[in-house]
Amino acid sequence: MAHYRIEIRVTPRPGILDPQGKAIHHSLQNLGWTAVDDVRVGKAIHVEMEAESEESARSEAEAMCRKLLANPVTEDFEVYQVEEA
Amino acid sequence: MAHYRIEIRVTPRPGILDPQGKAIHHSLQNLGWTAVDDVRVGKAIHVEMEAESEESARSEAEAMCRKLLANPVTEDFEVYQVEEA
Repeated sequence: MAHYRIEIRVTPRPGILDPQGKAIHHSLQNLGWTAVDDVRVGKAIHVEMEAESEESARSEAEAMCRKLLANPVTEDFEVYQVEEA
Repeated sequence: MAHYRIEIRVTPRPGILDPQGKAIHHSLQNLGWTAVDDVRVGKAIHVEMEAESEESARSEAEAMCRKLLANPVTEDFEVYQVEEA
């Protein structure tokens, strides 16, 4: 068994309203960042766990997303980093 | 000018209470994921903008974090991906 640090991103699906992203976009415009076209806000989830291998840590993390971390109707998820620590 | 997609992570600083992370950790344990040691939850922010170069897009994104996206007392930020799109 080894110890893994896993980074997960859960974001609103394209087409789903994202009021927090809209609010930040508006504030950035007001602060002078007029070159910004779009802002989307989701959850950044960091998980530390014991697992047999990197593949096993990744597949456990994907199972957590499907079962608890993401709402499959409104959100997409991505396990974008798995590293032994 | 080119178009860039930027991924930013804003997370609670070590030592700062993270009730959402604690709640998810607890739920994962209840679902049988007893190998999980720690969960931290932050914001995943996706920004699309026009910029002169990748370096300039990155430095603008870091300025947004310092000025608006992250609370410097309680949160850390990382601009972990900048790609031309």
